[in-house]
Amino acid sequence: MIERIAIVGTGLLGASAGLALRAAGFRGTIAGWNRGPEQAQTALEMGALDSVATDPLQMARESQVVLLAMPVYAILDWMEQLAPVLGPDHLVSDVGSTKAQITAAAGRLFNQPDRAAFLPGHPMAGKERGGAALADAELFRGAVWMFTEAGAGNPSWKRSEASAELVRDWREWVTAIGAKVIEIDPARHDELVAWVSHLPQFVATGLSALLEDQVGDAPELKHVGGRGLREMTRLGASPYSMWRDIAYTNSEAIQAALFALEQRLAHIRENLRTPELRAEFDKANQFRKE
Amino acid sequence: MIERIAIVGTGLLGASAGLALRAAGFRGTIAGWNRGPEQAQTALEMGALDSVATDPLQMARESQVVLLAMPVYAILDWMEQLAPVLGPDHLVSDVGSTKAQITAAAGRLFNQPDRAAFLPGHPMAGKERGGAALADAELFRGAVWMFTEAGAGNPSWKRSEASAELVRDWREWVTAIGAKVIEIDPARHDELVAWVSHLPQFVATGLSALLEDQVGDAPELKHVGGRGLREMTRLGASPYSMWRDIAYTNSEAIQAALFALEQRLAHIRENLRTPELRAEFDKANQFRKE
Repeated sequence: MIERIAIVGTGLLGASAGLALRAAGFRGTIAGWNRGPEQAQTALEMGALDSVATDPLQMARESQVVLLAMPVYAILDWMEQLAPVLGPDHLVSDVGSTKAQITAAAGRLFNQPDRAAFLPGHPMAGKERGGAALADAELFRGAVWMFTEAGAGNPSWKRSEASAELVRDWREWVTAIGAKVIEIDPARHDELVAWVSHLPQFVATGLSALLEDQVGDAPELKHVGGRGLREMTRLGASPYSMWRDIAYTNSEAIQAALFALEQRLAHIRENLRTPELRAEFDKANQFRKE
Repeated sequence: MIERIAIVGTGLLGASAGLALRAAGFRGTIAGWNRGPEQAQTALEMGALDSVATDPLQMARESQVVLLAMPVYAILDWMEQLAPVLGPDHLVSDVGSTKAQITAAAGRLFNQPDRAAFLPGHPMAGKERGGAALADAELFRGAVWMFTEAGAGNPSWKRSEASAELVRDWREWVTAIGAKVIEIDPARHDELVAWVSHLPQFVATGLSALLEDQVGDAPELKHVGGRGLREMTRLGASPYSMWRDIAYTNSEAIQAALFALEQRLAHIRENLRTPELRAEFDKANQFRKE
Protein backbone atom coordinates (compact mmCIF):
# COMPACT_ATOMS: atom_id res chain seq x y z
CA MET A 1 0.00 0.00 0.00
CA ILE A 2 1.54 3.26 -1.11
CA GLU A 3 1.14 5.93 1.56
CA ARG A 4 4.07 8.28 0.95
CA ILE A 5 4.91 9.70 -2.45
CA ALA A 6 7.71 12.14 -3.27
CA ILE A 7 7.72 14.14 -6.49
CA VAL A 8 11.10 15.42 -7.61
CA GLY A 9 10.44 18.11 -10.20
CA THR A 10 7.10 19.83 -9.67
CA GLY A 11 6.61 21.38 -13.09
CA LEU A 12 3.67 20.64 -15.36
CA LEU A 13 3.91 16.84 -15.23
CA GLY A 14 4.98 16.50 -11.59
CA ALA A 15 2.33 18.87 -10.27
CA SER A 16 -0.32 17.33 -12.54
CA ALA A 17 0.57 13.89 -11.15
CA GLY A 18 0.02 15.20 -7.63
CA LEU A 19 -3.34 16.74 -8.54
CA ALA A 20 -4.40 13.62 -10.43
CA LEU A 21 -3.49 11.29 -7.55
CA ARG A 22 -5.55 13.42 -5.14
CA ALA A 23 -8.48 13.50 -7.57
CA ALA A 24 -8.29 9.71 -7.88
CA GLY A 25 -8.55 9.32 -4.14
CA PHE A 26 -4.95 8.98 -2.95
CA ARG A 27 -5.06 9.68 0.79
CA GLY A 28 -1.39 9.38 1.70
CA THR A 29 1.16 12.18 1.76
CA ILE A 30 2.67 13.84 -1.31
CA ALA A 31 5.91 15.70 -0.75
CA GLY A 32 7.61 17.70 -3.46
CA TRP A 33 10.87 19.34 -4.35
CA ASN A 34 11.91 21.45 -7.29
CA ARG A 35 15.25 22.98 -8.20
CA GLY A 36 13.55 26.36 -8.51
CA PRO A 37 11.53 26.62 -5.28
CA GLU A 38 8.81 28.86 -6.75
CA GLN A 39 7.47 25.96 -8.86
CA ALA A 40 7.20 23.81 -5.73
CA GLN A 41 5.42 26.62 -3.95
CA THR A 42 2.94 26.94 -6.82
CA ALA A 43 2.33 23.18 -6.77
CA LEU A 44 1.76 23.34 -3.02
CA GLU A 45 -0.72 26.19 -3.35
CA MET A 46 -2.59 24.33 -6.08
CA GLY A 47 -3.02 21.32 -3.80
CA ALA A 48 -0.67 19.05 -5.75
CA LEU A 49 1.59 18.64 -2.70
CA ASP A 50 1.17 18.45 1.07
CA SER A 51 4.63 19.77 1.76
CA VAL A 52 7.69 21.18 0.06
CA ALA A 53 10.96 19.56 1.03
CA THR A 54 14.23 21.40 1.48
CA ASP A 55 16.34 18.23 1.41
CA PRO A 56 15.25 16.11 -1.55
CA LEU A 57 17.37 13.07 -0.62
CA GLN A 58 15.84 12.96 2.83
CA MET A 59 12.40 13.41 1.28
CA ALA A 60 13.08 10.45 -1.00
CA ARG A 61 14.28 8.25 1.88
CA GLU A 62 11.13 9.02 3.87
CA SER A 63 8.87 8.14 0.94
CA GLN A 64 7.92 4.81 -0.59
CA VAL A 65 7.58 6.02 -4.16
CA VAL A 66 9.74 8.71 -5.75
CA LEU A 67 8.53 10.13 -9.06
CA LEU A 68 11.20 11.86 -11.16
CA ALA A 69 9.46 14.43 -13.35
CA MET A 70 12.23 16.24 -15.17
CA PRO A 71 14.12 16.23 -18.47
CA VAL A 72 16.06 13.04 -19.26
CA TYR A 73 19.56 14.11 -18.18
CA ALA A 74 18.24 15.43 -14.88
CA ILE A 75 16.49 12.10 -14.33
CA LEU A 76 19.73 10.23 -15.04
CA ASP A 77 21.53 12.48 -12.52
CA TRP A 78 18.92 11.82 -9.85
CA MET A 79 19.06 8.10 -10.49
CA GLU A 80 22.77 8.21 -9.66
CA GLN A 81 22.12 10.22 -6.51
CA LEU A 82 19.16 8.19 -5.28
CA ALA A 83 20.43 4.66 -5.90
CA PRO A 84 22.91 4.64 -2.99
CA VAL A 85 20.53 6.21 -0.44
CA LEU A 86 17.40 4.16 -1.16
CA GLY A 87 16.75 0.50 -0.41
CA PRO A 88 14.48 -2.47 -1.11
CA ASP A 89 11.46 -0.70 0.43
CA HIS A 90 11.55 2.01 -2.23
CA LEU A 91 10.31 2.42 -5.77
CA VAL A 92 11.55 5.12 -8.12
CA SER A 93 9.65 5.84 -11.32
CA ASP A 94 9.95 8.61 -13.90
CA VAL A 95 8.20 10.41 -16.73
CA GLY A 96 11.23 10.86 -18.99
CA SER A 97 10.65 11.36 -22.72
CA THR A 98 13.25 8.88 -23.97
CA LYS A 99 13.70 5.50 -22.38
CA ALA A 100 16.77 3.66 -23.69
CA GLN A 101 19.33 5.35 -21.44
CA ILE A 102 17.03 5.53 -18.42
CA THR A 103 16.06 1.87 -18.71
CA ALA A 104 19.71 0.87 -19.01
CA ALA A 105 20.54 2.92 -15.91
CA ALA A 106 17.58 1.32 -14.12
CA GLY A 107 19.16 -2.09 -14.66
CA ARG A 108 22.60 -0.91 -13.60
CA LEU A 109 21.60 1.07 -10.48
CA PHE A 110 18.29 -0.41 -9.29
CA ASN A 111 16.14 -3.54 -9.47
CA GLN A 112 18.29 -5.83 -7.30
CA PRO A 113 17.02 -7.52 -4.15
CA ASP A 114 18.97 -5.14 -1.89
CA ARG A 115 18.17 -2.02 -3.87
CA ALA A 116 15.19 0.11 -4.74
CA ALA A 117 13.03 -0.83 -7.71
CA PHE A 118 12.96 1.46 -10.74
CA LEU A 119 10.02 1.44 -13.12
CA PRO A 120 10.78 3.44 -16.28
CA GLY A 121 7.66 5.28 -17.46
CA HIS A 122 6.55 7.87 -19.99
CA PRO A 123 3.12 9.49 -20.05
CA MET A 124 2.26 10.92 -23.49
CA ALA A 125 0.82 14.07 -22.01
CA GLY A 126 1.98 17.63 -21.85
CA LYS A 127 1.41 21.09 -23.13
CA GLU A 128 3.45 23.33 -25.38
CA ARG A 129 4.51 25.24 -22.29
CA GLY A 130 5.58 23.80 -18.95
CA GLY A 131 5.29 24.94 -15.37
CA ALA A 132 3.28 24.03 -12.27
CA ALA A 133 0.80 26.84 -12.90
CA LEU A 134 -0.58 24.92 -15.91
CA ALA A 135 -0.95 21.67 -13.95
CA ASP A 136 -4.21 19.80 -14.44
CA ALA A 137 -5.67 16.81 -12.60
CA GLU A 138 -7.10 15.62 -15.93
CA LEU A 139 -3.83 15.85 -17.88
CA PHE A 140 -3.38 12.06 -18.02
CA ARG A 141 -7.03 11.17 -18.65
CA GLY A 142 -7.11 9.05 -21.80
CA ALA A 143 -3.37 9.51 -22.42
CA VAL A 144 -1.06 6.60 -23.09
CA TRP A 145 1.46 5.93 -20.29
CA MET A 146 4.22 3.65 -21.47
CA PHE A 147 6.33 1.41 -19.24
CA THR A 148 9.54 -0.04 -20.62
CA GLU A 149 10.51 -2.65 -18.06
CA ALA A 150 8.89 -5.62 -19.78
CA GLY A 151 10.58 -4.76 -23.03
CA ALA A 152 13.87 -4.65 -21.21
CA GLY A 153 13.38 -8.38 -20.93
CA ASN A 154 16.22 -8.32 -18.50
CA PRO A 155 16.36 -11.51 -16.41
CA SER A 156 18.89 -9.79 -14.16
CA TRP A 157 16.15 -7.47 -12.81
CA LYS A 158 15.45 -9.08 -9.43
CA ARG A 159 13.37 -6.89 -7.18
CA SER A 160 12.69 -7.33 -3.49
CA GLU A 161 9.20 -8.50 -2.61
CA ALA A 162 8.41 -5.13 -1.00
CA SER A 163 9.53 -3.06 -3.96
CA ALA A 164 7.80 -5.37 -6.45
CA GLU A 165 4.58 -4.72 -4.55
CA LEU A 166 5.15 -0.96 -4.83
CA VAL A 167 5.56 -1.42 -8.58
CA ARG A 168 2.19 -3.18 -8.77
CA ASP A 169 0.54 -0.51 -6.64
CA TRP A 170 2.05 2.36 -8.63
CA ARG A 171 0.81 0.81 -11.89
CA GLU A 172 -2.68 0.75 -10.38
CA TRP A 173 -2.49 4.44 -9.50
CA VAL A 174 -1.41 5.27 -13.03
CA THR A 175 -4.51 3.49 -14.28
CA ALA A 176 -6.62 5.17 -11.60
CA ILE A 177 -5.66 8.65 -12.83
CA GLY A 178 -7.05 7.75 -16.24
CA ALA A 179 -3.96 6.78 -18.25
CA LYS A 180 -3.88 3.83 -20.64
CA VAL A 181 -0.83 1.69 -19.88
CA ILE A 182 1.19 0.22 -22.76
CA GLU A 183 4.19 -2.07 -22.22
CA ILE A 184 6.91 -1.54 -24.76
CA ASP A 185 10.56 -2.33 -25.32
CA PRO A 186 12.69 0.77 -24.56
CA ALA A 187 14.39 0.81 -27.98
CA ARG A 188 11.02 0.41 -29.70
CA HIS A 189 9.65 3.18 -27.47
CA ASP A 190 12.35 5.59 -28.56
CA GLU A 191 11.83 4.76 -32.22
CA LEU A 192 8.06 5.08 -31.92
CA VAL A 193 8.11 8.46 -30.17
CA ALA A 194 10.58 9.74 -32.76
CA TRP A 195 7.77 9.28 -35.30
CA VAL A 196 4.64 10.24 -33.39
CA SER A 197 5.97 12.85 -30.97
CA HIS A 198 9.45 14.14 -31.78
CA LEU A 199 8.93 14.45 -35.55
CA PRO A 200 5.71 16.50 -35.16
CA GLN A 201 7.53 18.76 -32.69
CA PHE A 202 10.54 19.42 -34.88
CA VAL A 203 8.30 19.96 -37.90
CA ALA A 204 6.25 22.52 -35.95
CA THR A 205 9.46 24.20 -34.81
CA GLY A 206 10.91 24.28 -38.33
CA LEU A 207 7.66 25.50 -39.87
CA SER A 208 7.22 28.20 -37.22
CA ALA A 209 10.82 29.39 -37.57
CA LEU A 210 10.51 29.48 -41.36
CA LEU A 211 7.28 31.46 -41.19
CA GLU A 212 8.83 33.87 -38.71
CA ASP A 213 11.45 34.58 -41.37
CA GLN A 214 8.82 34.92 -44.08
CA VAL A 215 5.97 36.85 -42.47
CA GLY A 216 7.26 37.69 -38.99
CA ASP A 217 7.55 41.36 -39.95
CA ALA A 218 3.85 41.50 -40.87
CA PRO A 219 2.01 40.23 -37.78
CA GLU A 220 -1.40 40.84 -39.36
CA LEU A 221 -0.54 38.20 -41.97
CA LYS A 222 -0.01 35.53 -39.28
CA HIS A 223 -3.78 35.57 -38.81
CA VAL A 224 -4.47 34.92 -42.48
CA GLY A 225 -3.69 31.23 -42.08
CA GLY A 226 -6.54 30.58 -39.67
CA ARG A 227 -7.07 27.47 -37.57
CA GLY A 228 -4.93 25.19 -39.74
CA LEU A 229 -1.88 27.41 -39.36
CA ARG A 230 -2.49 27.87 -35.63
CA GLU A 231 -2.61 24.12 -35.08
CA MET A 232 0.39 23.38 -37.28
CA THR A 233 2.52 25.88 -35.34
CA ARG A 234 1.14 25.56 -31.79
CA LEU A 235 4.01 23.26 -30.79
CA GLY A 236 6.34 25.95 -32.10
CA ALA A 237 5.84 27.62 -28.72
CA SER A 238 7.64 24.74 -26.99
CA PRO A 239 10.86 25.95 -25.40
CA TYR A 240 14.27 24.51 -26.27
CA SER A 241 14.74 23.57 -22.60
CA MET A 242 11.96 20.98 -22.92
CA TRP A 243 13.50 19.40 -26.03
CA ARG A 244 17.26 19.61 -25.66
CA ASP A 245 17.62 16.30 -23.80
CA ILE A 246 15.28 14.55 -26.24
CA ALA A 247 17.33 15.77 -29.20
CA TYR A 248 20.50 14.52 -27.51
CA THR A 249 19.24 11.16 -26.30
CA ASN A 250 17.26 10.14 -29.39
CA SER A 251 19.28 11.77 -32.15
CA GLU A 252 19.51 8.83 -34.53
CA ALA A 253 15.81 8.01 -34.58
CA ILE A 254 14.86 11.69 -34.93
CA GLN A 255 17.34 12.15 -37.78
CA ALA A 256 15.86 9.17 -39.61
CA ALA A 257 12.33 10.50 -39.17
CA LEU A 258 13.25 14.02 -40.29
CA PHE A 259 15.11 12.70 -43.32
CA ALA A 260 12.12 10.57 -44.30
CA LEU A 261 9.83 13.61 -44.09
CA GLU A 262 12.23 15.75 -46.12
CA GLN A 263 12.08 13.10 -48.84
CA ARG A 264 8.31 12.95 -48.61
CA LEU A 265 7.96 16.71 -49.00
CA ALA A 266 10.34 16.66 -51.96
CA HIS A 267 8.18 13.96 -53.51
CA ILE A 268 5.08 16.11 -53.08
CA ARG A 269 6.94 19.16 -54.41
CA GLU A 270 7.95 17.27 -57.55
CA ASN A 271 4.43 15.91 -58.09
CA LEU A 272 2.12 18.88 -57.57
CA ARG A 273 0.73 18.29 -61.07
CA THR A 274 0.89 14.50 -61.32
CA PRO A 275 -1.41 11.72 -60.09
CA GLU A 276 1.16 10.99 -57.36
CA LEU A 277 -0.29 13.93 -55.41
CA ARG A 278 -3.65 12.18 -55.24
CA ALA A 279 -1.92 9.06 -53.92
CA GLU A 280 -0.31 11.10 -51.14
CA PHE A 281 -3.63 12.68 -50.17
CA ASP A 282 -5.32 9.26 -50.21
CA LYS A 283 -2.65 7.79 -47.93
CA ALA A 284 -2.88 10.77 -45.59
CA ASN A 285 -6.69 10.40 -45.51
CA GLN A 286 -6.16 6.76 -44.56
CA PHE A 287 -4.06 7.76 -41.56
CA ARG A 288 -6.83 10.01 -40.30
CA LYS A 289 -9.57 7.40 -40.70
CA GLU A 290 -10.92 6.24 -37.34
CA MET B 1 -29.30 47.52 -52.07
CA ILE B 2 -28.69 43.81 -52.60
CA GLU B 3 -31.97 41.89 -52.55
CA ARG B 4 -31.26 38.80 -54.67
CA ILE B 5 -28.22 36.61 -54.16
CA ALA B 6 -27.37 33.45 -56.08
CA ILE B 7 -24.86 30.93 -54.73
CA VAL B 8 -23.27 28.66 -57.33
CA GLY B 9 -21.71 25.78 -55.42
CA THR B 10 -23.49 25.08 -52.14
CA GLY B 11 -20.81 23.08 -50.35
CA LEU B 12 -19.25 24.08 -47.05
CA LEU B 13 -18.35 27.66 -48.03
CA GLY B 14 -21.38 28.40 -50.18
CA ALA B 15 -23.89 27.07 -47.67
CA SER B 16 -22.06 28.76 -44.80
CA ALA B 17 -22.26 32.06 -46.67
CA GLY B 18 -26.04 31.62 -46.99
CA LEU B 19 -26.41 30.83 -43.29
CA ALA B 20 -24.12 33.71 -42.30
CA LEU B 21 -26.02 36.23 -44.45
CA ARG B 22 -29.29 35.17 -42.87
CA ALA B 23 -27.80 35.36 -39.37
CA ALA B 24 -26.49 38.86 -40.15
CA GLY B 25 -29.98 40.01 -41.13
CA PHE B 26 -30.09 39.66 -44.91
CA ARG B 27 -33.79 39.71 -45.82
CA GLY B 28 -33.61 39.25 -49.58
CA THR B 29 -33.74 35.98 -51.47
CA ILE B 30 -30.91 33.45 -51.64
CA ALA B 31 -31.09 30.98 -54.50
CA GLY B 32 -28.62 28.15 -54.89
CA TRP B 33 -27.40 25.62 -57.38
CA ASN B 34 -24.92 22.79 -57.06
CA ARG B 35 -23.61 20.33 -59.62
CA GLY B 36 -24.60 17.48 -57.32
CA PRO B 37 -28.21 18.37 -56.35
CA GLU B 38 -28.07 16.62 -52.95
CA GLN B 39 -25.71 19.31 -51.60
CA ALA B 40 -28.15 22.02 -52.70
CA GLN B 41 -30.99 20.11 -51.04
CA THR B 42 -29.01 19.89 -47.80
CA ALA B 43 -28.26 23.63 -47.94
CA LEU B 44 -31.95 24.32 -48.51
CA GLU B 45 -32.99 22.17 -45.56
CA MET B 46 -30.43 23.90 -43.32
CA GLY B 47 -31.91 27.29 -44.18
CA ALA B 48 -28.92 28.50 -46.20
CA LEU B 49 -31.10 28.89 -49.33
CA ASP B 50 -34.66 29.89 -50.10
CA SER B 51 -34.77 27.91 -53.31
CA VAL B 52 -32.77 25.49 -55.38
CA ALA B 53 -32.44 26.38 -59.04
CA THR B 54 -32.50 23.93 -61.90
CA ASP B 55 -31.08 26.39 -64.45
CA PRO B 56 -28.06 28.12 -62.92
CA LEU B 57 -27.63 30.65 -65.76
CA GLN B 58 -31.21 31.78 -65.39
CA MET B 59 -30.75 31.94 -61.62
CA ALA B 60 -27.70 34.15 -62.13
CA ARG B 61 -29.53 36.47 -64.51
CA GLU B 62 -32.37 36.90 -62.02
CA SER B 63 -29.97 37.76 -59.18
CA GLN B 64 -27.96 40.86 -58.43
CA VAL B 65 -25.01 39.13 -56.81
CA VAL B 66 -23.66 35.73 -57.85
CA LEU B 67 -21.23 34.04 -55.46
CA LEU B 68 -19.05 31.35 -57.01
CA ALA B 69 -18.10 28.93 -54.23
CA MET B 70 -16.15 26.17 -55.93
CA PRO B 71 -12.59 25.09 -56.69
CA VAL B 72 -10.56 27.47 -58.85
CA TYR B 73 -10.94 25.79 -62.25
CA ALA B 74 -14.70 25.50 -61.80
CA ILE B 75 -14.81 29.21 -60.95
CA LEU B 76 -12.85 30.03 -64.11
CA ASP B 77 -15.32 27.92 -66.14
CA TRP B 78 -18.29 29.71 -64.62
CA MET B 79 -16.73 33.10 -65.26
CA GLU B 80 -16.58 32.22 -68.97
CA GLN B 81 -20.19 31.06 -68.93
CA LEU B 82 -21.58 33.97 -66.91
CA ALA B 83 -19.78 36.89 -68.56
CA PRO B 84 -21.88 36.85 -71.78
CA VAL B 85 -25.24 36.42 -70.03
CA LEU B 86 -24.86 39.03 -67.27
CA GLY B 87 -24.82 42.79 -67.57
CA PRO B 88 -23.99 46.05 -65.78
CA ASP B 89 -26.62 45.41 -63.10
CA HIS B 90 -24.81 42.30 -61.86
CA LEU B 91 -21.91 41.55 -59.55
CA VAL B 92 -20.09 38.24 -59.50
CA SER B 93 -17.76 37.42 -56.61
CA ASP B 94 -15.99 34.23 -55.59
CA VAL B 95 -14.25 32.42 -52.76
CA GLY B 96 -11.48 30.80 -54.82
CA SER B 97 -8.27 29.77 -53.06
CA THR B 98 -5.82 31.23 -55.58
CA LYS B 99 -6.33 34.62 -57.12
CA ALA B 100 -3.86 35.37 -59.94
CA GLN B 101 -5.74 33.55 -62.70
CA ILE B 102 -9.18 34.52 -61.42
CA THR B 103 -8.24 38.20 -61.11
CA ALA B 104 -6.78 38.18 -64.61
CA ALA B 105 -9.99 36.62 -65.95
CA ALA B 106 -12.01 39.22 -64.03
CA GLY B 107 -10.23 41.94 -65.98
CA ARG B 108 -10.65 40.15 -69.29
CA LEU B 109 -14.32 39.13 -68.93
CA PHE B 110 -15.88 41.59 -66.46
CA ASN B 111 -15.48 45.06 -65.01
CA GLN B 112 -16.37 47.11 -68.06
CA PRO B 113 -19.24 49.64 -68.17
CA ASP B 114 -21.43 47.31 -70.23
CA ARG B 115 -20.57 44.18 -68.31
CA ALA B 116 -21.06 42.73 -64.87
CA ALA B 117 -18.59 43.59 -62.12
CA PHE B 118 -16.36 40.86 -60.71
CA LEU B 119 -14.88 41.16 -57.21
CA PRO B 120 -12.24 38.47 -56.60
CA GLY B 121 -12.40 37.28 -52.99
CA HIS B 122 -10.96 34.62 -50.70
CA PRO B 123 -12.19 33.92 -47.19
CA MET B 124 -9.57 32.13 -45.07
CA ALA B 125 -12.10 29.78 -43.58
CA GLY B 126 -12.86 26.13 -44.06
CA LYS B 127 -12.69 22.74 -42.49
CA GLU B 128 -10.63 19.69 -43.31
CA ARG B 129 -13.73 18.19 -44.88
CA GLY B 130 -16.23 19.93 -47.14
CA GLY B 131 -19.92 19.58 -47.74
CA ALA B 132 -23.08 21.54 -46.98
CA ALA B 133 -23.85 19.38 -43.96
CA LEU B 134 -20.90 20.97 -42.12
CA ALA B 135 -22.00 24.52 -42.96
CA ASP B 136 -21.88 27.01 -40.13
CA ALA B 137 -23.23 30.56 -39.86
CA GLU B 138 -20.17 31.43 -37.73
CA LEU B 139 -17.58 30.03 -40.15
CA PHE B 140 -16.37 33.47 -41.22
CA ARG B 141 -16.49 35.12 -37.79
CA GLY B 142 -13.02 36.56 -37.16
CA ALA B 143 -11.64 35.08 -40.38
CA VAL B 144 -9.69 37.13 -42.88
CA TRP B 145 -11.49 37.67 -46.20
CA MET B 146 -9.12 38.93 -48.86
CA PHE B 147 -10.10 40.95 -51.93
CA THR B 148 -7.64 41.26 -54.78
CA GLU B 149 -9.13 43.99 -56.96
CA ALA B 150 -7.19 46.88 -55.50
CA GLY B 151 -3.92 45.04 -55.91
CA ALA B 152 -4.82 44.46 -59.51
CA GLY B 153 -4.30 48.18 -59.82
CA ASN B 154 -5.83 47.88 -63.22
CA PRO B 155 -6.95 51.26 -64.57
CA SER B 156 -8.84 49.42 -67.29
CA TRP B 157 -11.38 48.16 -64.71
CA LYS B 158 -14.30 50.49 -65.39
CA ARG B 159 -17.48 49.37 -63.70
CA SER B 160 -20.99 50.64 -64.28
CA GLU B 161 -22.40 52.77 -61.48
CA ALA B 162 -24.94 50.09 -60.62
CA SER B 163 -22.42 47.28 -60.40
CA ALA B 164 -19.97 49.45 -58.46
CA GLU B 165 -22.71 49.99 -55.88
CA LEU B 166 -23.25 46.24 -55.65
CA VAL B 167 -19.52 45.85 -54.97
CA ARG B 168 -19.76 48.33 -52.08
CA ASP B 169 -22.83 46.59 -50.68
CA TRP B 170 -21.31 43.12 -50.96
CA ARG B 171 -18.22 44.29 -49.10
CA GLU B 172 -20.48 45.51 -46.31
CA TRP B 173 -22.19 42.14 -46.08
CA VAL B 174 -18.82 40.39 -45.85
CA THR B 175 -17.99 42.62 -42.90
CA ALA B 176 -21.46 42.06 -41.43
CA ILE B 177 -20.95 38.28 -41.29
CA GLY B 178 -17.87 38.84 -39.14
CA ALA B 179 -14.98 38.62 -41.60
CA LYS B 180 -11.97 40.93 -41.51
CA VAL B 181 -11.37 42.35 -44.97
CA ILE B 182 -7.82 42.70 -46.28
CA GLU B 183 -6.96 44.23 -49.67
CA ILE B 184 -4.05 42.55 -51.35
CA ASP B 185 -2.40 42.31 -54.74
CA PRO B 186 -3.35 38.98 -56.40
CA ALA B 187 0.26 37.86 -56.93
CA ARG B 188 1.12 38.75 -53.33
CA HIS B 189 -2.01 36.89 -52.22
CA ASP B 190 -0.92 33.71 -53.95
CA GLU B 191 2.58 33.94 -52.52
CA LEU B 192 1.26 34.64 -49.02
CA VAL B 193 -1.23 31.76 -48.97
CA ALA B 194 1.51 29.44 -50.27
CA TRP B 195 3.29 30.09 -46.95
CA VAL B 196 0.47 30.33 -44.43
CA SER B 197 -2.11 27.96 -45.92
CA HIS B 198 -0.80 25.72 -48.68
CA LEU B 199 2.50 24.84 -46.99
CA PRO B 200 0.79 23.78 -43.72
CA GLN B 201 -1.63 21.65 -45.75
CA PHE B 202 1.03 19.86 -47.77
CA VAL B 203 3.14 19.32 -44.65
CA ALA B 204 0.16 17.78 -42.86
CA THR B 205 -0.51 15.59 -45.89
CA GLY B 206 3.12 14.48 -46.15
CA LEU B 207 3.43 13.86 -42.41
CA SER B 208 0.17 11.90 -42.31
CA ALA B 209 1.11 9.81 -45.35
CA LEU B 210 4.55 9.08 -43.88
CA LEU B 211 3.07 8.05 -40.55
CA GLU B 212 0.54 5.84 -42.30
CA ASP B 213 3.51 4.00 -43.81
CA GLN B 214 5.29 3.83 -40.45
CA VAL B 215 2.58 3.03 -37.91
CA GLY B 216 -0.55 2.54 -40.01
CA ASP B 217 -0.51 -1.20 -39.32
CA ALA B 218 -0.65 -0.57 -35.57
CA PRO B 219 -3.67 1.69 -35.01
CA GLU B 220 -3.20 1.66 -31.24
CA LEU B 221 0.11 3.46 -31.72
CA LYS B 222 -1.57 6.37 -33.53
CA HIS B 223 -2.98 7.35 -30.15
CA VAL B 224 0.44 7.48 -28.51
CA GLY B 225 1.18 10.87 -30.04
CA GLY B 226 -1.66 12.62 -28.25
CA ARG B 227 -2.95 16.10 -28.99
CA GLY B 228 0.18 17.32 -30.74
CA LEU B 229 0.05 14.53 -33.30
CA ARG B 230 -3.70 14.95 -33.78
CA GLU B 231 -3.30 18.64 -34.53
CA MET B 232 -0.30 18.17 -36.80
CA THR B 233 -2.19 15.63 -38.90
CA ARG B 234 -5.79 16.95 -38.79
CA LEU B 235 -5.42 18.60 -42.18
CA GLY B 236 -4.26 15.21 -43.47
CA ALA B 237 -7.98 14.39 -43.71
CA SER B 238 -8.42 17.01 -46.46
CA PRO B 239 -9.38 15.34 -49.73
CA TYR B 240 -7.35 15.70 -52.91
CA SER B 241 -10.42 17.16 -54.64
CA MET B 242 -10.18 20.27 -52.43
CA TRP B 243 -6.50 20.79 -53.22
CA ARG B 244 -5.95 19.73 -56.81
CA ASP B 245 -6.75 23.13 -58.32
CA ILE B 246 -4.63 24.91 -55.73
CA ALA B 247 -1.65 22.68 -56.51
CA TYR B 248 -2.11 23.39 -60.24
CA THR B 249 -2.72 27.13 -60.05
CA ASN B 250 -0.07 28.01 -57.45
CA SER B 251 2.62 25.42 -58.19
CA GLU B 252 5.64 27.70 -58.22
CA ALA B 253 4.97 29.41 -54.92
CA ILE B 254 4.11 26.09 -53.24
CA GLN B 255 7.28 24.50 -54.61
CA ALA B 256 9.38 27.35 -53.23
CA ALA B 257 7.72 27.06 -49.81
CA LEU B 258 8.12 23.27 -49.66
CA PHE B 259 11.75 23.48 -50.73
CA ALA B 260 12.46 26.07 -48.04
CA LEU B 261 10.90 23.81 -45.39
CA GLU B 262 12.87 20.79 -46.61
CA GLN B 263 16.04 22.82 -46.15
CA ARG B 264 14.91 23.98 -42.73
CA LEU B 265 14.23 20.42 -41.57
CA ALA B 266 17.62 19.31 -42.91
CA HIS B 267 19.20 22.13 -40.93
CA ILE B 268 17.47 20.95 -37.76
CA ARG B 269 18.43 17.34 -38.51
CA GLU B 270 22.08 18.29 -38.85
CA ASN B 271 22.03 20.37 -35.69
CA LEU B 272 20.23 18.24 -33.11
CA ARG B 273 23.28 18.49 -30.87
CA THR B 274 24.50 22.00 -31.64
CA PRO B 275 23.48 25.46 -30.39
CA GLU B 276 21.76 26.00 -33.75
CA LEU B 277 18.84 23.95 -32.44
CA ARG B 278 18.28 26.48 -29.68
CA ALA B 279 18.25 29.25 -32.28
CA GLU B 280 15.55 27.43 -34.24
CA PHE B 281 13.40 26.96 -31.15
CA ASP B 282 13.87 30.61 -30.19
CA LYS B 283 12.80 31.76 -33.64
CA ALA B 284 9.78 29.44 -33.59
CA ASN B 285 8.85 30.76 -30.13
CA GLN B 286 9.00 34.26 -31.60
CA PHE B 287 6.48 33.34 -34.28
CA ARG B 288 4.04 32.12 -31.65
CA LYS B 289 4.36 35.23 -29.46
CA GLU B 290 1.20 37.30 -29.46
